[in-house]
This record gives sequence, C-alpha cells and structure tokens, in this order.
Amino acid sequence: MPCLLADIVGARFLELGVSCTDWRGIFTGTALARVRPADTAQVAACVAACAAAGVAVVPVGGNTGLCGGATPHGGEVMLALDRLSRIRDIDPVGASMVAEAGVTLQAARAAATEVGLDLPVSLASGGSAQIGGLVSTNAGGNATLRYGNMREQVLGLEVVLADGRVWQGLRRLRKDNTGLALRQLFVGAEGTLGVVTAACLRLVPAPAAREVALAALPDVAACVALLTRVRQAEEAGLHAFEYLSGAALRMAVAQVPGCADPFAQPHPAYVLVELAGADGTVLRERLEALLAGALAEGCVLDAVVASSEAQRAALWRLREVQAEAQARAGANVKNDVSVPIAAIPAFVADATRACEAMLPGVRVVPFGHAGDGNIHFNLVAPEGADPARFQAQGEALMAAVAEVARGLDGSFSAEHGVGQLKTGLMEAWRGGVELEMMRRVKKALDPDGVFNPGKVLPNAGRSTAGHAR
Amino acid sequence: MPCLLADIVGARFLELGVSCTDWRGIFTGTALARVRPADTAQVAACVAACAAAGVAVVPVGGNTGLCGGATPHGGEVMLALDRLSRIRDIDPVGASMVAEAGVTLQAARAAATEVGLDLPVSLASGGSAQIGGLVSTNAGGNATLRYGNMREQVLGLEVVLADGRVWQGLRRLRKDNTGLALRQLFVGAEGTLGVVTAACLRLVPAPAAREVALAALPDVAACVALLTRVRQAEEAGLHAFEYLSGAALRMAVAQVPGCADPFAQPHPAYVLVELAGADGTVLRERLEALLAGALAEGCVLDAVVASSEAQRAALWRLREVQAEAQARAGANVKNDVSVPIAAIPAFVADATRACEAMLPGVRVVPFGHAGDGNIHFNLVAPEGADPARFQAQGEALMAAVAEVARGLDGSFSAEHGVGQLKTGLMEAWRGGVELEMMRRVKKALDPDGVFNPGKVLPNAGRSTAGHAR
Repeated sequence: MPCLLADIVGARFLELGVSCTDWRGIFTGTALARVRPADTAQVAACVAACAAAGVAVVPVGGNTGLCGGATPHGGEVMLALDRLSRIRDIDPVGASMVAEAGVTLQAARAAATEVGLDLPVSLASGGSAQIGGLVSTNAGGNATLRYGNMREQVLGLEVVLADGRVWQGLRRLRKDNTGLALRQLFVGAEGTLGVVTAACLRLVPAPAAREVALAALPDVAACVALLTRVRQAEEAGLHAFEYLSGAALRMAVAQVPGCADPFAQPHPAYVLVELAGADGTVLRERLEALLAGALAEGCVLDAVVASSEAQRAALWRLREVQAEAQARAGANVKNDVSVPIAAIPAFVADATRACEAMLPGVRVVPFGHAGDGNIHFNLVAPEGADPARFQAQGEALMAAVAEVARGLDGSFSAEHGVGQLKTGLMEAWRGGVELEMMRRVKKALDPDGVFNPGKVLPNAGRSTAGHAR
Repeated sequence: MPCLLADIVGARFLELGVSCTDWRGIFTGTALARVRPADTAQVAACVAACAAAGVAVVPVGGNTGLCGGATPHGGEVMLALDRLSRIRDIDPVGASMVAEAGVTLQAARAAATEVGLDLPVSLASGGSAQIGGLVSTNAGGNATLRYGNMREQVLGLEVVLADGRVWQGLRRLRKDNTGLALRQLFVGAEGTLGVVTAACLRLVPAPAAREVALAALPDVAACVALLTRVRQAEEAGLHAFEYLSGAALRMAVAQVPGCADPFAQPHPAYVLVELAGADGTVLRERLEALLAGALAEGCVLDAVVASSEAQRAALWRLREVQAEAQARAGANVKNDVSVPIAAIPAFVADATRACEAMLPGVRVVPFGHAGDGNIHFNLVAPEGADPARFQAQGEALMAAVAEVARGLDGSFSAEHGVGQLKTGLMEAWRGGVELEMMRRVKKALDPDGVFNPGKVLPNAGRSTAGHAR
C-alpha cells in the first residue's frame, strides 16, 4: 500500500505513520499515512489504491473544522488536498469560477476581486479554510443572510468516487434540471461520499458601498423585533445582522487589545447591522432612519453608525474577535445551534438558565448570526476554574444546550456540521427513517465504507472499514 | 387493490380505469385508478397498498408540467395531491410557511401577502401549479435571478417514502448542517423518490417599489453586455432580466389582443429589466442612469421606462403572453435550454442556423430568463404548414437545439425537468458515472421502483414495476 501511494504521488508527498490533532487540540488520531496528491488523477489513483487495499480515506482540507471531521480515528490514509491549488477558470461575464479543492477561501476571494466580483462567503478562518472543505461542510459565516451558505454558491463539482472513478460535474450553469441533485449530496457530506477535487462557484458583484451600525438593545427579544423591522424595510440591502450578548461584547473589550465599547454605558444586548448597495449616502440615510424609528419604538436604546472605514472595521472587530476573546478568558465550549428566529429569546433565556444551574459561575457568552437564527451559545469556564475539569463537563453542557434547542424545533448544528464531535446526537435527533435514508445513500455511493468512517453517521463505516485495521 | 384504496380514501375519491392527457395534449396514458387522498396519512396508506400490490404510483399535482412527468404510461395508480390543500402554518417573524402539496402557488403567495411577505416564485401557471409539483420539479420562473429556484425556497419537507413510511423533515431553520442533504434529493426528483406531501418554504418581504424598463438592443450580444452593466451597478436590486427576440415581441403584438410595441420601429432584440427595492424614486433614477449609460455606449438603441403600474403591466405582458402568442401563431415546439451567460449570443445564432437549415421557413422565437442563461428557444411551424407534420419533426428540432447547447457546455433542460419527454437525452448527456449514481440513489430509496416509473431515468423503474402490468 504505502509503496503504491509513493508510486502515485512521489515519495516526498507521502508521510508514513502520522499522528494528527485538530487545530483546537480536541481530537487526536493516527493515520497509516498522509498523502498529498498533485491533481485529480492522483487523487483518483490514491482512492482506488486505498479501496483495493481495504484502507479507509480521510479527505483533509485546511484543518479549520470545528467537529473533527478531518481528523482520523486510526488506520486510515489522510488525503490532503492542499496541492490542488489552482483556480482553473474564472468567467467574469457568467460570474463564476472553477477552483480546485485546495484553494484557500482567501485566495479564491482575491481572484474574484481581480475581476470585480466576490465569492460571498465570509469566515474568520478564510486564510486557511479550503474550497473542498468549505463545500464538504456547507460552510456558513457572516454572509449567509444575504447570499446563503456554501451550498448556494456551488454550481458544479468534480468528485472522486469510492471506486476511484471521477465524476465530472463541473457545470457552470445557473439552472439545470436534468435528473437527481447529486451535487447537493456531496455538499455538506463532510467527505463521507466522495472527495471533492474542484468546484464551480457562483460569484457576485461586490456592493459599492457598505454602512454599518451597532445598536444597543434592552433585551434579546428586541433583537427579533429589530430584525423584522430592518428586513421589511431593507430586504435587498441587508447584508449582516449579528447578535452580541452584553457579556460577549464586554469580554471582547476586556480580553482583546484594541477593542473598545462605543457606548458610554453597558447594555444587555447588541446587534451589528450592515446594509450594502450601490449608493453609500442613500444607505446611510436609510440606516439612520431605521434606527431612529427603532429608538422611538423602544426596541433600540442607543446606536452608533460608523462614519469611516476604520469605524466600520472597529465595530466588526467586536464580532470577529469573539473566538479569540473567549479563548483568552479561559477554557470554553462552543455551541452552534439554530432555532426559528422567533424562538431566539426563549432559547437564550432557557439555555442560560440550564447552564447556570448545571455549573454555577459559568460565563455564558452567546453571539452569532441572529438573522439566520444561528446562535453560537458559547460557554467560558468560571473564573479560576480548572480548565481540564471544565472541559470534562463540556459534553454535558453541550447536550443541555442542544436539548433546549430541540424543544424549540431547533438544530444541534447550524453550520459546523457533525464530524466526529456530534455523531452521538444523530440517533436521537435524526434517527428512524431519516438516518436510515442517510445510511442507504451512503451505502449506495460508498458501499465498502472507504470514505471518512465514523464521521457524520453514527457507527457507519467504522465496521465496514474495520477490515483495514 | 381498488377495494383497498376505496377503503382508505372513500369510494368518491377513487376513479377507476382513467385515461389521462397532459395539458399540452402531447402525452396520453392510462392508469389503473386515480386516487385523491385527504391527508398525509391517507397518502402513506395508498402508497403502502400500491407497494404491497406491486403497482406503481404516479404523484400528480396541478398538471402544468411541460415534460409529461405526471402522465402515466399505463397500469399505474395516479395519486392526486389536490386535497392536501391546507396552509398549516405561517410564521411572519421567521418568514416561512408550511404548505401542503396541493396548495396552488397563487394561494400560497396570497397567504404570504396577508402577512406582508411573499413566496418569491413567479410562473405563468401559478393559478394551477401546486406546491408538491413545484418542489418536485424544482420550478424556475421569473424570480429566479433574484431569489433562486424552488430549491432555494425549501427549508423542510414531509415526504411519503416507497414503503409507505413518512419522513417528517418539515424543519423551518435557515441553517441546519446535520447530515446528508436528503431534502435536496427530493427537490427536482420529479416524484421518482417519494411523494412530497408538505413543504416548509422561506418567505421574503415584498419590495416596496418596482421599476420596469424595456430596452431595445442592436443584437443578442448587447443583451450580455447590458446584463453585466446592470448587475455590476444594481446587484441587490436586480429582480428580472428577461430577453425577447425581435420575433418574439412582434409575435406577441400580432397575435395577442392588447399587446402593443412601445417603440416606433422594430429592433433586433429586447430586454425587460426590473429593479426592486425600498424607494421607487431612487430606483427610477438609477434605472434611467443605467439606461442612459448603455445608450451612450451603444449596447442599447432605445428604451422605455414604465411610469405607472399600468405601463409596467403592459411591458411585462409582452413577456408573459409568449406561450399564448406562439400557440396562436401555429404548432410549436418548446425548448428549455441553459448555457453559460457569455455563450447566449453564440447559442441563439447557431441554434437559429441549425433549425432554419433543417426546416426552411420555421419561425424561431427565442426569449427567456437571460439573467440565468436560460433561453426558451421556441419554434413555430412555417406559415401554412401542416401542424401534425411539424409536430412530427419536433423531436429532431429539439435534438438539434440541444446539440448546440451541448457544444457550449449548456443543459437540455434548465427548468422544465426531464419527465418522460427528455429521458432519451439522459444517457448521452448524463451517462456514465453520473447516471449510475442516480440509479444507485433511486435504488437505495425506492428499491422496488414504486414511484413514477419511466420518468427522469431512462428505463429505470419500467422493468422493476413491470410485474404490475
């Protein structure tokens, strides 16, 4: 096997006996080898060789995932896509690009910018996250409210299948109703059905102007009222609607140098609103009018509208440093929950109560994409608590938060996916006929369990790939 | 079997020995029975009974499809969803509704309007087309450019599966990354994988203002240049960009009472542009500025901007009466092709040449959703030609048009689907590994070929369901 892989990619792109930890340091696993193919043909040959030898394959992108989807369990071959880093084609008229799996989000966006367009996916990890992983996890982020998730950007895919054949589905059409929606299956499958080697992605014209405000609110309920108001008035121009709890804003200010609270006094909750469009002056007038109306109605207590690029960046920074601020404040647990928008206030209140009851002193710092109903209900260890002890309680805290979301018809994973972190929740949440269908589809496309065993589907693949270990 | 179905739905909702023709009069078939269940439980019981008896099931919506997807071949049971006509829930804050399969598009949009929102799907057949069919065909229409196809509106689904079990996937979350994208499979499957009984659909605030212009262009290439210009300036507000060939506009004026050419002289091509947003005055200024720029640059020869609701309706009418105008002009063949946007001019020129060479005198009347690269390259019989003889040439003309699209990396079906009309093209266009994957997924979810045999997948289901005939 290793010899065969070395023949395919060359010895310098094969590393044997790899031990691997995800970037958060939560998941560790060993792999038989890490192989770095140069192109789609080499990916196909590697997969075929692994399949023939009965060895499972873990596709690996930029190692920015939050659920351990790209960390091996042991005995697999890690297939790193970073050398597939070409932008094969960019079509300014059709507004699309064909990017290989290993292109970083940052590089893809930069290439789009060169032709006056944008790939509208915005993530803190964009410098490392790769197209293949973004497609495979159906990545979300700050631009979802206006442009959808990664799924909505994918026009076509090239995928290496479980027997090493290549599906050439790199179409760049805006509309194509010719049979079952195969490409949709590979988006969000987290590498369990095939290896995405390239994607054709839609691009959009970057708006000429952006206007950003931070609004201080009396409570979380006001966040929903403000969203309804802004959406109704500015549907076409609403580009971001991000919630920051009072605790989240104050943690950013306390922990991260250069972060400042723009208000003179603390408030219970905040929302960052961004409008974008053709004319900054018009946008600004409308944003101010909106906020004035919301102030008069009482759902906004105070607001600042950024009047320069530096001020806009400073307001966005309060949102973007959240992960860093929480990491600086102590051990922390991330939750990536979605609920129907009307249920956001109940979710935040009930989940706060549940966590504080389980662990007195826990610091609850919810924030996130309120416009999508997606709250990162993050938790930081009580002041002075032992980090290891707190992490040991992490799973129970996550389960408690998920249960609150479940009672409100929510989801335990809005944008991070399942990976190996959340497979344990799949049976309870998606069990019965739904999980059975998923397993049948998995079996149909990867009958021998070659791809990413033990991820997404509980127990699926582990046993079938077990013969390799 | 018939007894069993009568027990489930009541004798008055069962009709035996049905002969059925699609609304265009192109496809005719017989069915063992037509059954009209009242709710999801009855749908499930009917499917279970048919599956047990080895009888295939054809789900039927509003009979507005263009590819015969809901017309039986013979020996099936037709399962009409029209009695599942409740809007179960509407959430103004979350901006979503749960509509049953038999709700018409018009009724769904009216219900959304009552809460100040819209279901952003716009089709000429909206008064008859039903939600189940719209989901199952991933319907397109005039609003796709801004809001996407039906796929992009579907947040969740309730589906009766091949063994009569119900998948309760009616989630109303904006983001949910918890496993394989099952709901995406049922969207556009044309009833071959399950019966959609209800859908949760996203709603959007209807823009406060719309401004519409008709631009006259020197040629089809100018249509692409104008699109690039409008998109770059007005990405957020661009709601429609519809192409009308000179022939298409003049046929509407000649054939349909009340249609008038707003220009003093004929032009080679036209584009209908609609901008929408918060403020009509602002939109109108920007639309006029855009057109003035395009006039100066020469990609627009002349333009009219509607200055009243009546004028807007009159301009849209030129687009909306196309099917009627062509039917009045004579026998006609519809093509529903998509190509990359930059290839539209080459496609129109080459397909025109190909058709005129095959049939001198044929009237070529292309029009359609140019903003999506989706051209309805329709053909009307030569003046005085025998309609039956022309229809007999239809398949060859369609194949010739499809071949031109294929040479330009296009698709033979942008929004109409495959049904039974276009299954013959699937092997050549989607054959090999792609069709094999589709067949595997079909087999995984409908192992005995209960659903809609002979549709979408060539030969699939016909043989497996053959035991029933």
